[in-house]
Amino acid sequence: MINQDFIDKALAAHRAVWSEYDGLRYVRFVDDFQGICRGTVVFGDQVVYGYPSIGRVLALNSGLRGQFHAPFWMEEKVDGFNVRLIKLNHRLLALTRGGFICPFTTDRIVDLLNPHVFEHEPDIVLCGEVVGPDNPYMEGSVPYIKQDVELFVFDIGAINQKRFMGYADKESLIERYQLPSVQRFGRFQINDLPKIGEILLQLNIEYREGVIFKEDSPRDHRAKYTTSNINIVDIEAGAYTMFDLPPEYFKNRIARLVLFMDEQGLSSTVELQQQLGEAYVRGLLEAIQQVHEHHKVFRTFRCRFRQRENAVKLLKHLSEIGGHVQITLRELKEQDGYWLLEFDKVFPKSSGTLSSLLKGSLLFD
Amino acid sequence: MINQDFIDKALAAHRAVWSEYDGLRYVRFVDDFQGICRGTVVFGDQVVYGYPSIGRVLALNSGLRGQFHAPFWMEEKVDGFNVRLIKLNHRLLALTRGGFICPFTTDRIVDLLNPHVFEHEPDIVLCGEVVGPDNPYMEGSVPYIKQDVELFVFDIGAINQKRFMGYADKESLIERYQLPSVQRFGRFQINDLPKIGEILLQLNIEYREGVIFKEDSPRDHRAKYTTSNINIVDIEAGAYTMFDLPPEYFKNRIARLVLFMDEQGLSSTVELQQQLGEAYVRGLLEAIQQVHEHHKVFRTFRCRFRQRENAVKLLKHLSEIGGHVQITLRELKEQDGYWLLEFDKVFPKSSGTLSSLLKGSLLFD
Repeated sequence: MINQDFIDKALAAHRAVWSEYDGLRYVRFVDDFQGICRGTVVFGDQVVYGYPSIGRVLALNSGLRGQFHAPFWMEEKVDGFNVRLIKLNHRLLALTRGGFICPFTTDRIVDLLNPHVFEHEPDIVLCGEVVGPDNPYMEGSVPYIKQDVELFVFDIGAINQKRFMGYADKESLIERYQLPSVQRFGRFQINDLPKIGEILLQLNIEYREGVIFKEDSPRDHRAKYTTSNINIVDIEAGAYTMFDLPPEYFKNRIARLVLFMDEQGLSSTVELQQQLGEAYVRGLLEAIQQVHEHHKVFRTFRCRFRQRENAVKLLKHLSEIGGHVQITLRELKEQDGYWLLEFDKVFPKSSGTLSSLLKGSLLFD
Repeated sequence: MINQDFIDKALAAHRAVWSEYDGLRYVRFVDDFQGICRGTVVFGDQVVYGYPSIGRVLALNSGLRGQFHAPFWMEEKVDGFNVRLIKLNHRLLALTRGGFICPFTTDRIVDLLNPHVFEHEPDIVLCGEVVGPDNPYMEGSVPYIKQDVELFVFDIGAINQKRFMGYADKESLIERYQLPSVQRFGRFQINDLPKIGEILLQLNIEYREGVIFKEDSPRDHRAKYTTSNINIVDIEAGAYTMFDLPPEYFKNRIARLVLFMDEQGLSSTVELQQQLGEAYVRGLLEAIQQVHEHHKVFRTFRCRFRQRENAVKLLKHLSEIGGHVQITLRELKEQDGYWLLEFDKVFPKSSGTLSSLLKGSLLFD
């Protein structure tokens, strides 16, 4: 239970910190701490629990057999950024995975769903993925969203409740309030593996990231499994900012890709191998081109706001959380009733390493 | 100058350690220390200086322009393991890059070259690469060596001398004693770039690793440059033991590959992209296959010895230097006048990670 004593301990251990957004002070868990997961936030006596990590299986058959002891639901895993939407003292707020209040999503909540759900269910916590080409965090989108962003709800919880509501209750709320939801494929058993494989192959063809399995049992055990093509997309994006990425980035994706190919019978597909090689080459060549032209490696992002001040807040937020990545404003202007923000993320290690290599400097490896 | 005082300081700083081989005690520099490079060894009052690191250029044109202020020699860079051969108190010894006495190469020196060179030049230090399919250190060979190992000399120094002898003197010794040498392409200037590029493209086609440039000037400045195909070979080998490799392994090779392709006009070659993708997929699929069949990822090595005891010494040496890699004997038997040793290197992280993934365990990433 999270009481004042527990919060004080977490603060003292630097697992939680005080944060502030627009006059609202709150405690944010920056790390897992004694069963409370990273991203948990505390507003006075109201706790919004962090969204728990979901483990990944790389081998589907043995993974399902090993992980699930009861039938399970299968839903699409959408490749965007994770948010928790709440209403707190008459304000709609969007929390990121890390427990920050997101200036962008908070500004746009009323475009993402009909907020009347919060009038009827004031304690609700809507967990979902925000995805689309015009978002401030992630390169790319899903193929079925061509502009701006959309929300896809996948779990519903409540303030001061650690667990999500049951699957049937979730579905009935989604139905009742017409909440935008991730695609739900239904309830399966281990024996349905051929059917599951078919769905996955179709998702793979459509470049959709993968699925989440949720056991239909009190323990609500979960696992994720991703398709192969998305790894190729990730590798191309990663090759572009190669020197700024964590070392395991490529290894993990190669492992996921090859295990998917192996299990789904795609391993001898020459076309796939060519796409993989092309992803590396294209991504890095594009970065080289950028360094030739602009002397740096950067990506341009854009997103729309209802209120100008939230765009300014977002830039400040990104600069604070971005670590070594630099944020530079390109433009902030009114357009079609919104404030259109354009900014660059500059990747200093990729910029520096490639500039230096292209200048012919010596590398000792 | 390396005197007793300096050695004591290096030992005290743990940059040098006492080592022992077959009753011979010596000091080995395990790290660079005050201008003395790693791999330097001291036998009493005789110092064999370590082979210095050679920096790599990834961009040829700007690299040559930036690095060289005088004409330079170009030699083949052979992809084997670096040795220094010496005669010490009537014993022929082979030192590895790290300054160990190599039980394998030492045993086989008389097969690698005609040792009479050491009678006429007793202080000589022959620096070269040992390469071939039957070596205990490295997967693979160069395409022109199909069995056992061969030596290719590329520098000649002397005991107690830090610098190598001049290029003309080296060539005349190679000539006089018919020493096996790396291919020497001659003396070039920056303006010869088209000619150099032609040679590199030919080396690339032949899957030969690359070249070393050595400035024809008192400072003897050097740089290396490698071809693209060798990176694909490395990536396939690396994908096989992916989880046991340092994080930068793939990044570095992708960067070298793409920069070579870009500069040599190969970047749009679909075949090359397919080979790159195939390298990853084949390497990792092979490892998966091994885990299915043998529950571990391993490579089998073999090499020949004149004396049985040196094979035993090599196994002990490999176990000591191998870090987390495990060495297991398969066979040691007489064959055609040699002792044929076969052993496995077992890669525990690749074995463990792949076993666990294939069993369907959850991965939190």
